[in-house]
Amino acid sequence: MSGSSIAVDINKFRDGIRQPQDDSVAVEEPLEVRLGYTTADGRATRSIAITMRTPGHDRELAAGFVFTEGIVGRADDITSIEVCGSPAPDTGNQNVIRIDLGADVSVDLGRLQRHFYTTSSCGVCGKASLDALRVGGARVFAAAGPVFKRAVLTAVPAALRGAQPTFEETGGLHAAAAFNAAGDLLVTMEDVGRHNAVDKVIGSLLLNNNLPAPELGLIVSGRASFELMQKTLMAGMPLLAAVSAPSSLAVQLAREFNLTLVGFLRGETFNIYAGEQRISE
Amino acid sequence: MSGSSIAVDINKFRDGIRQPQDDSVAVEEPLEVRLGYTTADGRATRSIAITMRTPGHDRELAAGFVFTEGIVGRADDITSIEVCGSPAPDTGNQNVIRIDLGADVSVDLGRLQRHFYTTSSCGVCGKASLDALRVGGARVFAAAGPVFKRAVLTAVPAALRGAQPTFEETGGLHAAAAFNAAGDLLVTMEDVGRHNAVDKVIGSLLLNNNLPAPELGLIVSGRASFELMQKTLMAGMPLLAAVSAPSSLAVQLAREFNLTLVGFLRGETFNIYAGEQRISE
Repeated sequence: MSGSSIAVDINKFRDGIRQPQDDSVAVEEPLEVRLGYTTADGRATRSIAITMRTPGHDRELAAGFVFTEGIVGRADDITSIEVCGSPAPDTGNQNVIRIDLGADVSVDLGRLQRHFYTTSSCGVCGKASLDALRVGGARVFAAAGPVFKRAVLTAVPAALRGAQPTFEETGGLHAAAAFNAAGDLLVTMEDVGRHNAVDKVIGSLLLNNNLPAPELGLIVSGRASFELMQKTLMAGMPLLAAVSAPSSLAVQLAREFNLTLVGFLRGETFNIYAGEQRISE
Repeated sequence: MSGSSIAVDINKFRDGIRQPQDDSVAVEEPLEVRLGYTTADGRATRSIAITMRTPGHDRELAAGFVFTEGIVGRADDITSIEVCGSPAPDTGNQNVIRIDLGADVSVDLGRLQRHFYTTSSCGVCGKASLDALRVGGARVFAAAGPVFKRAVLTAVPAALRGAQPTFEETGGLHAAAAFNAAGDLLVTMEDVGRHNAVDKVIGSLLLNNNLPAPELGLIVSGRASFELMQKTLMAGMPLLAAVSAPSSLAVQLAREFNLTLVGFLRGETFNIYAGEQRISE
């Protein structure tokens, strides 16, 4: 049993029979992200997020979070990442992580609030959400880029599943991975939160100086929402593949920024919602 | 096609053949919730949340949100709920909703930030999250309460699926419903966000003066996280049933507050993680 799952005693009902059983569930615990940065008045520290996550790869999670939120633009902006806080009484995990930024990094924490805003009187709609990304510096992808063969794409979900030890045990975790056109999974992460699994993947790429990643695709278990598409865009990855359905706003974002969006990737079947030029026979 | 899904043209790969196809996806659009309330200096208005939701039942969503966040305690605290904002250019939906509270309602918006905090030096862990709920006024359930027959529970997922028109169309929505011991679904809601579907159900119960709901259970598609368990607790519902896995913190919360938590509710099989006294043959 890994640190990302814990044992519980349950009662299982099967075919009308109730039976006590040992089981395990995915661990969910809060992580607080604190940011140390420089202001006009000197150094400041602020708590910028608390996310419910599965412990493990917290450094990558925190790095991915500040990157996909647009707070930092490159690994060099980060001078240190330290896990801190007393160990939790029940699990022993430390649930606070502190990211320190270089003195020359200018921080706009307003971004965390503004996210979906514009200053227009409408301000809140799908279009405004896309405009906000553009204002935040997200760029439309070039038409060119890597081409993923059909057979590569259809093989990725099984590879992802194979790299998910805790899911096998608990059935309770989402997974995300970065893969290349040869079908190799370069980074695979699990978490109770799909957005956290994606932040862990992107954080890992960032900390290894592999961002932007214009040659890589991202695969996620489950559905593709606006939030996941936005993270893919921020990471400079031209393709997001989801095992389940995409949302309307994920499709819109993919089309406006020329990303490839694949959904319902199951067995030999999948749907292409945008950017089909990156998929070949 | 309902307003909660939109048509998209896609390319479908099946058995090696690429074919253009008409498809539909679940609508995802931001909703801003604004709160009008009384301070020492008079009336104030503040934007308290932007959530990515599927349009429809926005009143219930907003009411459920302010209730499950502990901002209001009963329907009478709310004097009006008004949809506002210009229609979105692409869909025509209005994506701002304003909730006004009575002059005598004292509002603690710090709750929205504090959520998982305590003032201890540890402060961030599963136990602290549970303590925060207790400090916030959540009460442990009495041992007694409704008893749900096994056959009632196993019939609920099919009933939920039957009440999900947009899921059938798009495969892209989560669902939640309140049901009684006879197995009747009293309120059913869909949304791209599972937490939004739950807030819509709870908001509907609130606006119809049916909260707390000590005789009702809540069912959700997908997984049961801490957040969903917390909303169930706030609504005074003694049972949460999920089609997929629960997280560790959901199990802990259920056990500490004496709620019933059922997971992997599929066909004739399910697991009971807590509160098994409310399930009978």
